[in-house]
Amino acid sequence: MAGSELTNVKAPRVKAARRLTKRAFREQDRKFLAEGPQAVREALKLDGVVVELFTTAEAELRHGDLITEATLKGLPVHRASGEVMAELSQTVTPQGLVAVCGLVHTPLEEAVTERARLVAVLAHVRDPGNAGTVMRTADAAGADSVVFTDASVDPYNGKCVRASAGSLFHLPVVIGSPVGQAVQRLKDSGLRVLAADGSGKHTLDDVELSGPTAWVFGNEAWGLPEEVLALADDVVRVPIYGQAESLNLATAAAVCLYASARAQRAG
Amino acid sequence: MAGSELTNVKAPRVKAARRLTKRAFREQDRKFLAEGPQAVREALKLDGVVVELFTTAEAELRHGDLITEATLKGLPVHRASGEVMAELSQTVTPQGLVAVCGLVHTPLEEAVTERARLVAVLAHVRDPGNAGTVMRTADAAGADSVVFTDASVDPYNGKCVRASAGSLFHLPVVIGSPVGQAVQRLKDSGLRVLAADGSGKHTLDDVELSGPTAWVFGNEAWGLPEEVLALADDVVRVPIYGQAESLNLATAAAVCLYASARAQRAG
Repeated sequence: MAGSELTNVKAPRVKAARRLTKRAFREQDRKFLAEGPQAVREALKLDGVVVELFTTAEAELRHGDLITEATLKGLPVHRASGEVMAELSQTVTPQGLVAVCGLVHTPLEEAVTERARLVAVLAHVRDPGNAGTVMRTADAAGADSVVFTDASVDPYNGKCVRASAGSLFHLPVVIGSPVGQAVQRLKDSGLRVLAADGSGKHTLDDVELSGPTAWVFGNEAWGLPEEVLALADDVVRVPIYGQAESLNLATAAAVCLYASARAQRAG
Repeated sequence: MAGSELTNVKAPRVKAARRLTKRAFREQDRKFLAEGPQAVREALKLDGVVVELFTTAEAELRHGDLITEATLKGLPVHRASGEVMAELSQTVTPQGLVAVCGLVHTPLEEAVTERARLVAVLAHVRDPGNAGTVMRTADAAGADSVVFTDASVDPYNGKCVRASAGSLFHLPVVIGSPVGQAVQRLKDSGLRVLAADGSGKHTLDDVELSGPTAWVFGNEAWGLPEEVLALADDVVRVPIYGQAESLNLATAAAVCLYASARAQRAG
């Protein structure tokens, strides 16, 4: 444990971490916050990602393994008061563990290559919870990478990191890629680019999914813009058999990604 | 419009509606709140469900069709100030429309019959957002009904109603059913009962899904208890191909329900 318990919410170390809750400062400092035992555990598995760790005395007892691991890696571990933790936490019930991490994203050219079989692209996705859930689902479905276009939410947003349940640290994530550039790279790498949209002529049941595929998912409320639909090789909708108007974005993404994962493995 | 604009948050009519944000009062008054144009639109499609409607002047202009519809049905429509609407709303950015509705759930015996082909059961699901999303997905996947067991969240919870995006009004929903009773009824009606759980020996890719099927989904954090797993005909897990530890509950439900919908239609 580095020094005594931090109790002053205005201490420079606390303020330096606290400002990472804002996107502009994350970009400037090239760091972000990962909160809770699950995210911290996954972050610690990667070398050189965690910069420092804040813990409450209570969390230190409950997650002794993580504290030990961080200490053995020579990382600064700061014990913080409940008040300081509340300042760093972005959840209603803080779990007492926050890691300051270096950015983990990958350049498009490394994340998308000819070896890729399944890629999820988030174009204009604004809800951080949805975006994080799609990362988690893409990871579960065995996707090779996730691409956030420049009009999408920041994957380092606290809510997005949390919803990803550690998956942000599991697979290559690209950020800020112009959608045209991302689609071109995917096509050049031999992937078929499918836009998931309610306007699609084909349904998920009609398309052949055994080949390398990239799925492009759009905004929660208004789907994908015309220009993105035009870039795709095909526009595909998840069939609606009942009276629901549409599916939640993260739900639709799960159905599409798992349909691909299944078709690719059945072949 | 019944009377002048409601500006007093302590007015009896406002207090009577406001108390429906609490489960105990919903049960006592046999009413609940449906917020936002989508929920109100779907509620109005059912005869005798909407009891009264609160609207801001702004929402009245934006959703004139709904106000007209309610008025034509002879329903009391109350214009409310922003302050009163904030009192009735359970969202950060109120959309200016709240309907007081009568309860819409269906007895188990009516919702689950021998005609049912696909049913979703929520056992121990506590997160209202997840529960609402599962209702929406079950509706989209063409399920015959959704059963909330007695240990699950209240489907009339504001967040659940919102996440269901109108689906609460689309398909028969059962509430408060003891899980053993629900499973027995499903079996008696000829459905195969599959528990979706990470502990399953079989994966979704290994099971035959073309017959009538009920899926049982469990708690977000700890899955399904032993006694529920024991009741099911089989325990099935969604395969994890990557490094993710698990899937979000609503995501896993989407993958299972759509796998069933697809298999039932492919046959």
